[in-house]
Amino acid sequence: MLRPKSNSEQWISREHYEISPSVPAFEYTDRYGNLCQRLVAPAGAFSIHTGTEVSVTDSLDKAPGAPFVEVQNLPNAVLDYLLPSRFCESDRFWQMATEITAGQALGYDQVFAIEQWLANRISYIPGSSDVPVSAIEVNQRQTGVCRDLSHLGIALCRSLSIPARLVVGYRYKLEPMDMHAWFEAYVGDRWYTFDAVQSASKGGYVAVGFGRDAADVAIYNQFGPAVYPLEQRADVKRLRTP
Amino acid sequence: MLRPKSNSEQWISREHYEISPSVPAFEYTDRYGNLCQRLVAPAGAFSIHTGTEVSVTDSLDKAPGAPFVEVQNLPNAVLDYLLPSRFCESDRFWQMATEITAGQALGYDQVFAIEQWLANRISYIPGSSDVPVSAIEVNQRQTGVCRDLSHLGIALCRSLSIPARLVVGYRYKLEPMDMHAWFEAYVGDRWYTFDAVQSASKGGYVAVGFGRDAADVAIYNQFGPAVYPLEQRADVKRLRTP
Amino acid sequence: MLRPKSNSEQWISREHYEISPSVPAFEYTDRYGNLCQRLVAPAGAFSIHTGTEVSVTDSLDKAPGAPFVEVQNLPNAVLDYLLPSRFCESDRFWQMATEITAGQALGYDQVFAIEQWLANRISYIPGSSDVPVSAIEVNQRQTGVCRDLSHLGIALCRSLSIPARLVVGYRYKLEPMDMHAWFEAYVGDRWYTFDAVQSASKGGYVAVGFGRDAADVAIYNQFGPAVYPLEQRADVKRLRTP
Amino acid sequence: MLRPKSNSEQWISREHYEISPSVPAFEYTDRYGNLCQRLVAPAGAFSIHTGTEVSVTDSLDKAPGAPFVEVQNLPNAVLDYLLPSRFCESDRFWQMATEITAGQALGYDQVFAIEQWLANRISYIPGSSDVPVSAIEVNQRQTGVCRDLSHLGIALCRSLSIPARLVVGYRYKLEPMDMHAWFEAYVGDRWYTFDAVQSASKGGYVAVGFGRDAADVAIYNQFGPAVYPLEQRADVKRLRTP
Repeated sequence: MLRPKSNSEQWISREHYEISPSVPAFEYTDRYGNLCQRLVAPAGAFSIHTGTEVSVTDSLDKAPGAPFVEVQNLPNAVLDYLLPSRFCESDRFWQMATEITAGQALGYDQVFAIEQWLANRISYIPGSSDVPVSAIEVNQRQTGVCRDLSHLGIALCRSLSIPARLVVGYRYKLEPMDMHAWFEAYVGDRWYTFDAVQSASKGGYVAVGFGRDAADVAIYNQFGPAVYPLEQRADVKRLRTP
Repeated sequence: MLRPKSNSEQWISREHYEISPSVPAFEYTDRYGNLCQRLVAPAGAFSIHTGTEVSVTDSLDKAPGAPFVEVQNLPNAVLDYLLPSRFCESDRFWQMATEITAGQALGYDQVFAIEQWLANRISYIPGSSDVPVSAIEVNQRQTGVCRDLSHLGIALCRSLSIPARLVVGYRYKLEPMDMHAWFEAYVGDRWYTFDAVQSASKGGYVAVGFGRDAADVAIYNQFGPAVYPLEQRADVKRLRTP
Repeated sequence: MLRPKSNSEQWISREHYEISPSVPAFEYTDRYGNLCQRLVAPAGAFSIHTGTEVSVTDSLDKAPGAPFVEVQNLPNAVLDYLLPSRFCESDRFWQMATEITAGQALGYDQVFAIEQWLANRISYIPGSSDVPVSAIEVNQRQTGVCRDLSHLGIALCRSLSIPARLVVGYRYKLEPMDMHAWFEAYVGDRWYTFDAVQSASKGGYVAVGFGRDAADVAIYNQFGPAVYPLEQRADVKRLRTP
Repeated sequence: MLRPKSNSEQWISREHYEISPSVPAFEYTDRYGNLCQRLVAPAGAFSIHTGTEVSVTDSLDKAPGAPFVEVQNLPNAVLDYLLPSRFCESDRFWQMATEITAGQALGYDQVFAIEQWLANRISYIPGSSDVPVSAIEVNQRQTGVCRDLSHLGIALCRSLSIPARLVVGYRYKLEPMDMHAWFEAYVGDRWYTFDAVQSASKGGYVAVGFGRDAADVAIYNQFGPAVYPLEQRADVKRLRTP
């Protein structure tokens, strides 16, 4: 899943997708609307390079006070982001979420309290988990990568009946630079971006995939004999102010 | 999720759906094609009665020897049934699945070995779990309800790169009678039914919902103040041989 | 297409679908969300009986003054109801629509003027057309069945950049009783019902299918050797005030 | 609709989409799976440049003798390509199609006979129609652009219960170079490409959009005050043999 799509927050003006050595690849759209590419990697050295030129905003919308949307008023398409998923066992986090958000107005402010709690309590250590671990495990370890912090944030939101989803992609000035993962929560009748690793207020996000958690939006799912990734590198540059 | 749909295995010739006291209900189709009903239950006593007259087959297809489908040859629509999900942590079961299916031909025979292993090793105890537990937990407890055995079966199949999904619905002559859950695995280019609780060979299955696991196909998801189910009853009768 | 679905305007509490002699039938959902049934009719006498118990409202929403939605503000899902279709050649009706709606406020009032014009100028003659004819043909004949008047209404709306779609189904107290067709137009951020045959203000509509025109929502499409319909009968009764 | 997608017949390795002056554009996927871009063009000069690097095959599959698929065996997703549409009034062409295909084996050979008949009888005159005209009109004029010949071919196929759809895009070595339109017919369990303008046997096709006819896959649909296209230019170069 390496081909970002244009949407209401980003416009793809240029992209390329190189596979070498060249093998046939097939693209389809998954249940979440993401473009996915399927291919059989040949034996031996193999690489994929993609690049994209995207217009995004410099700053993200914030909405302190944006209200909680009662479940009966949520759009149908948002409902399954309330359900527990592989790495977000939201059915086990209600008590903890209630404590973290005590005293907050229902809605945006609850999610903001969760984001702050994650930033303060869970150590962000790039490279600290090789395989995805679940929100319960992240909470036990008190440490994780961007994906792990997001999983815990999502589980906490959903346990409060706030729809939440994982986004994977790129972020300008991420330190250290790599692919990134953050989360969105649905309050005040739209999705808002949250990022426990670095404040989301500065914008510069490029979304590649959306889903319930990393099981849905892995950069790649590999089947068959084990492969050994030799290198994964991401680079994000600012081109110009439009 | 209480309205079965006609599909290639079942034909709905008659159904009713009564809500009392009457409240507005809204129906939509989820990502998996299931019909879902949304409603706000009023305070006080509240009941839903549904009934359906369905044509199904008396016996289910079996296919010993049906081959494993290599991942590159799977249809796009089946791919996400390979991924781990809330209650089926297939990313943690590869070794166990390999042991259970040792010596089996790849494909149908592997799934059959898993079904047999579940029937022999995991005690089916109706009512033994109130809330859904995951495959890892079921494997620790060595006991479970139909849903739990299915979750473990699904996790084992997926760990072998065999797509598998949960089905909830009804089954003729289930003992004790209740709503039921079983699983399907995709081998030999189609879905086959497996049921670790009672041999699936006799047919009489009525599917109400399909999904990755019980998170997707709960009979109901309830949000808001706790509700206390007073009674849940299912009844399946044979009407006639067509 | 004989199985109505519940939606925000109607709730199906009971239904049956009988095919005699019994043959296998398969159901699927088309691009517009309608449930469609496929079957191979046997040689000889063959009949289908369906019935449904539906809750609908007694009166329909009217919204004089509801504004035209500029095309850039229409939801994506509504856009293709702006395009011409088999029986609604909206690309040829702009001048006529402009004359009919001269002096009207943009939006609901334009559609209302079109509905009135149809009711006054095109003679509604049940049984007057055997096969669907297009809006251009209806306009030449100045006469038609409910489907024909609706097609002309849809073509006129779309030519003014107002999304419009055909609905087929049943209507309480239709004279003479038969299956019915009417149209909906999207103004003021939602769909409103219009019916040039009998004022839509009284409600009692049961929708079975939605589409761009009768090509999408034929009650049945028949392929193969010609069949001779012996009888088609519809009956709509009021059961009770809920 | 100017952004081609990768599919089983083509792989997009590089593309760009420039709008000048820059205005916000929004992308969505329509009912047929095409990527569509929405934008409000500013007053004054305005241009869109797109480019794409695509891997396609040098020659297209041919399948003389590939059988007609009986309607009951067609996949659900193909069924609505049997229905008449705005510019393909297939409900009026059965007799003519029967005559054109007299003596042919059912299936591929019928479609090939239709393609040959179009190439021989309908004069291909680039620029001969400004606005889309329908199959009936094309048949009366006996002349048309690539889109018109395709519409007539589609109407003829559908009248014989062969699913057919319009494809718009680019073709290598088209004379004179422009955007192009051709058609596909579903026989022998898959779609095959046909082109009445230049034999389809040489390949070099890049599909941008698929639909029932030009109403679904217009390069652009424009609403509001009339715009005057100053220039439309297409250019297709061969990059290399992979």
